Amino acid sequence: MGLIPTLIVLLYVFESCFTGSSNSEHPIAALVLARGGSKGIPLKNIAEIQPNQTLLGRALGTIHQSGVFDSIWVSTDHEQIAYEADRHGAAVFARSAMHAQDHSTSLDAVREFLDAHPEIHNFALIQCTSPFLRAHYLVTAAHQFHSRMNAGMENAPACTFSVVRSYKLRWKEDVETGHLKAINFDPFARPRRQDWPGELVETGMFYFADRRLVMEMGSFQSETCTVVEVDEQDVLEIDNWRHLTLARILLGME
Amino acid sequence: MGLIPTLIVLLYVFESCFTGSSNSEHPIAALVLARGGSKGIPLKNIAEIQPNQTLLGRALGTIHQSGVFDSIWVSTDHEQIAYEADRHGAAVFARSAMHAQDHSTSLDAVREFLDAHPEIHNFALIQCTSPFLRAHYLVTAAHQFHSRMNAGMENAPACTFSVVRSYKLRWKEDVETGHLKAINFDPFARPRRQDWPGELVETGMFYFADRRLVMEMGSFQSETCTVVEVDEQDVLEIDNWRHLTLARILLGME
Repeated sequence: MGLIPTLIVLLYVFESCFTGSSNSEHPIAALVLARGGSKGIPLKNIAEIQPNQTLLGRALGTIHQSGVFDSIWVSTDHEQIAYEADRHGAAVFARSAMHAQDHSTSLDAVREFLDAHPEIHNFALIQCTSPFLRAHYLVTAAHQFHSRMNAGMENAPACTFSVVRSYKLRWKEDVETGHLKAINFDPFARPRRQDWPGELVETGMFYFADRRLVMEMGSFQSETCTVVEVDEQDVLEIDNWRHLTLARILLGME
Repeated sequence: MGLIPTLIVLLYVFESCFTGSSNSEHPIAALVLARGGSKGIPLKNIAEIQPNQTLLGRALGTIHQSGVFDSIWVSTDHEQIAYEADRHGAAVFARSAMHAQDHSTSLDAVREFLDAHPEIHNFALIQCTSPFLRAHYLVTAAHQFHSRMNAGMENAPACTFSVVRSYKLRWKEDVETGHLKAINFDPFARPRRQDWPGELVETGMFYFADRRLVMEMGSFQSETCTVVEVDEQDVLEIDNWRHLTLARILLGME
């Protein structure tokens, strides 16, 4: 862990001790969705990413390490994944077959989990196929989430999610005329990277939210969310074998 | 080369033979900008990307292989780069110090080159720091470019450039209120990848253009350009040592 992330963790612990914004005031449950029927890579969630470490095991280690969760859950329909979750100290939620299909959405799976756990008011959906999840991102997210709670914004359900800053130039093609249109810049005065703030792109790495967002509004997000910016080098998601090979090499270089 | 790219190349050669849309009718000059004073990686353009192959050498090999250019140029201010260009059969354009600064734009450098070469009507600016440039992308681009020329759209300068399709969800942060706004989707009805066409993101790999676009309009692009979609796995650009290491490993796996 670098100096700045370490300082963030220490500051958070320090502030928690003296202001009373501890986890227990607004407890957050970490939740990893890990069904067995992944496409591309079979049983992707427990694919080996480092010697003796699966994707799920790695994520659960990072979640534990962050120290900001009051409970840690894995929702799965597969015995081997449940075993791996248990081995890493997570509680297992038995996901129904109905919500573990190829077309099932994360939203449906989270709703099923929250339905069964009315005692959970706040959760963090964390994607174990993001192997570059860092504990300090989770600490920063929890800090933002608690601050929002403590600020008494009770009517606007709190939420925080991961983004990455992007400086990509984008175009739109008019299907009828075939003409292109620059969307986020002027092609006759192209911006240099240092001349504009870029754009925020959702990474899918994590979503912290008040349960009301999911149960009443059908979303993990709203306009009053805060965001945690993650490093461009940490956004890789494992969707296929090539990603897996790449991640193994990159982790070996760390 | 895979079956489909091979077929594209063969079809192009076949069509060229019978329709007369040969290179010589609308000759295109390939141009690589490769100054000596790169940041991050010193002399990046001639950094080794494979055993006995530099970034510039690799790009020139691919450019030759495509067979769609009537001349191949490297604009540089550095002796070693000029030597490497010459070794790979490219003509060297002596780039002035004025247009080889950190703040120099590609547009200025191309303008300087075209100023000195009034006989060149069409050019393709090709980025040698894109090691996954493929000959079949250049063939497709040249084909589109010639078709546009042959269609007699003489008043709209022809142009073609590389893009990649992206399915990223984007957000904008209001600096004053701190509120977020989803830009390209509805957060309460998130699109699945298969439900929307995504967006076109410029890659910087190559820009084919009629010289008038640069000399009269100050751009490589216009709304009447066509685009060539490159594979997501081919977009990596070498900006730092990590990218270079990554590209070396990925090329070793091909």
